[in-house]
Amino acid sequence: MSLKVPSLDLLSHELSKLPGIGAKTAYRLALSILKKKEADIEALRSALKAIKENVKLCRDCFSYTENLEVCSFCEDTERAQSPLLCVVKSPSDINKIESSGVFKGLYHVLHGTISPLDGVGPQDLKISELLNRVKLLRDKGLSEVVIALDANIDGDTTTLYLKELLEEENIKVSRLAHGVPLGSYIDFVDQRTVGRALENRIKI
Amino acid sequence: MSLKVPSLDLLSHELSKLPGIGAKTAYRLALSILKKKEADIEALRSALKAIKENVKLCRDCFSYTENLEVCSFCEDTERAQSPLLCVVKSPSDINKIESSGVFKGLYHVLHGTISPLDGVGPQDLKISELLNRVKLLRDKGLSEVVIALDANIDGDTTTLYLKELLEEENIKVSRLAHGVPLGSYIDFVDQRTVGRALENRIKI
Repeated sequence: MSLKVPSLDLLSHELSKLPGIGAKTAYRLALSILKKKEADIEALRSALKAIKENVKLCRDCFSYTENLEVCSFCEDTERAQSPLLCVVKSPSDINKIESSGVFKGLYHVLHGTISPLDGVGPQDLKISELLNRVKLLRDKGLSEVVIALDANIDGDTTTLYLKELLEEENIKVSRLAHGVPLGSYIDFVDQRTVGRALENRIKI
Repeated sequence: MSLKVPSLDLLSHELSKLPGIGAKTAYRLALSILKKKEADIEALRSALKAIKENVKLCRDCFSYTENLEVCSFCEDTERAQSPLLCVVKSPSDINKIESSGVFKGLYHVLHGTISPLDGVGPQDLKISELLNRVKLLRDKGLSEVVIALDANIDGDTTTLYLKELLEEENIKVSRLAHGVPLGSYIDFVDQRTVGRALENRIKI
């Protein structure tokens, strides 16, 4: 059901292509945009233009960067000398790891994980770039690559694949620990996670 | 926490001004837009431009219309002869009423309700336009105005205000029935609604 106003339907259709925005939410957003001032809509339009024009992939880690060849993490001289490099699936994962406040090393973004069902192979990811980078950084003191990929089949496949490649380069490889999330009840955690947490139990 | 990419932060900021889009959702949307093809972003940008350029208020009912002076409801010759006119707060309410399939008359959009706390008085709404329209339509067979405003203080205030004005014009005035929503449990309905449903009980 719509008000039969083509421009409203079109904007609603375009908005509904965004992730998590269903048809009803899109129509509600389109109606609210229609009520906005022209200057506010223009601000959104120029932000949409700027993002594609200004944002590039970092030359070294393939996260996002603007104005510069390298991103703020690669540019950081302290991080550049870190013995740790963390491999993530996408730039947004960097946000999550940074918010933990625990990691102060470099990052490398694969832009996906190996997924035979979706036709994504190692050549589609920034894996050869990772190997070249590891060889370079090893001379500057890199000693360990931390693989921080999703805890699912594609993430695990990619982790094992990278482990074999990186061990050939004589570099220590680690991955994120699995276990019971902080603040959660044992009863609410699935049995495979509890099993893993038992196997990896820690002496106190 | 952000990736320190200004264009990404800007787009995220603009998106977060939309209703129901919080900071986290806005950032997620901005990241997903960054991954889109340029043509897809351009489609969204032109839809945003078109909506403000093409969509106007209907000359008669003040709902939205495009290309024409009057909206599709006012243009409908069958509706134009209807004895019923339904008063709503905003164009999106027309959608809801249309989806019920029960109403086949004309609409009139007030673009708000009287709200002394928000400084909205009768002069800020399309009320004088409603009165002029009712006078005109009465000669074409209009006999009843159905007021379909929200069931809250502002809606009720506006309903009473319109009732007095319209009764001076010798027109029948009605409003939506209050009662237990279909499909709901008595236990989940608030006591004021149950009280109203008891007072307005219907012989079966």
